[in-house]
Amino acid sequence: MSSAEEVEEEKNAKRRDENGGAEQAMEERKGSDWLKLTSELLSVDDATRLVGDEGCGAIAMFIGTTRDTFEGRRVIRLEYEAYEAMAQSELRKVCRGAREAWPGVRHICIHHRLGIVPVGEASVVIAISSPHRQDSLQAVQYCINTLKSTVPIWKKEVYEDDGASWKENQECPWGHSKQT
Amino acid sequence: MSSAEEVEEEKNAKRRDENGGAEQAMEERKGSDWLKLTSELLSVDDATRLVGDEGCGAIAMFIGTTRDTFEGRRVIRLEYEAYEAMAQSELRKVCRGAREAWPGVRHICIHHRLGIVPVGEASVVIAISSPHRQDSLQAVQYCINTLKSTVPIWKKEVYEDDGASWKENQECPWGHSKQT
Repeated sequence: MSSAEEVEEEKNAKRRDENGGAEQAMEERKGSDWLKLTSELLSVDDATRLVGDEGCGAIAMFIGTTRDTFEGRRVIRLEYEAYEAMAQSELRKVCRGAREAWPGVRHICIHHRLGIVPVGEASVVIAISSPHRQDSLQAVQYCINTLKSTVPIWKKEVYEDDGASWKENQECPWGHSKQT
Repeated sequence: MSSAEEVEEEKNAKRRDENGGAEQAMEERKGSDWLKLTSELLSVDDATRLVGDEGCGAIAMFIGTTRDTFEGRRVIRLEYEAYEAMAQSELRKVCRGAREAWPGVRHICIHHRLGIVPVGEASVVIAISSPHRQDSLQAVQYCINTLKSTVPIWKKEVYEDDGASWKENQECPWGHSKQT
């Protein structure tokens, strides 16, 4: 998605910067949603910078990383695949849901990695800014829980002992299984 | 505090790395508390790195930043002062409280800046790792709320219009006022 979408957002932000005047000050208080599915390494600093806002006193973040064990088995790496178009659409719904429930939310960044994610590296980074901290703290929980239960992203766990299997997101009620 | 404490923690971490064997693997699963009061710029990447752990699938973070307005007045910068010894002791209590309530918490990093913090920069960064996300997400809320209500750190708001005044942390029931 989202190289294109991010470019569009950057254009919009530049436009806002160029408008000048009091109206622009209000305009700047509107929030942006920064969404990306990427095979590249995720950057926590990038996410922090994207949601940074001088009108906000709080940024809440969640970073999901590949851990080395799952139910007692040694994990070597994870691999993620997505239905990209549907995942984009569902991520936008996640943002709308967060903004409806916590109107104080200013900017939202959700970056999800696809492909191989070695142990210790991030598969998802969510950052949310708000003037006051309770909005962003609560919204970030909502976003990761809702992402896990609604966004069509599959995870393949590759174990040290005996190969691997694709599985649907365990928290996703409509998820499909996929065997390889 | 805490340059010294961080050096000590790094020594301990190195010692753990050097021990080798299965016992060390268990030892490594024990958590560290990384606490620092500093006049230097806070780094979100440093905090992320300090709590990173291959046995953890989740890092939750909170970043408190200086915002440009407070109750309709334009803020230029904040300045923070602490009773350092007492603040250290209270920060350690915050960590203990989080670990008691969420035993899944692995590592905790709380970095608080002192002195001048310009608009947009971070005054506090909290990062917490855990194998499963609910522990770190809930513990980070507990830590920032408890820090705000118990740790003796004063905030001076410097306004564009008419000077400045030191004030106790508004959420701190036993806080002292200080006029300058």
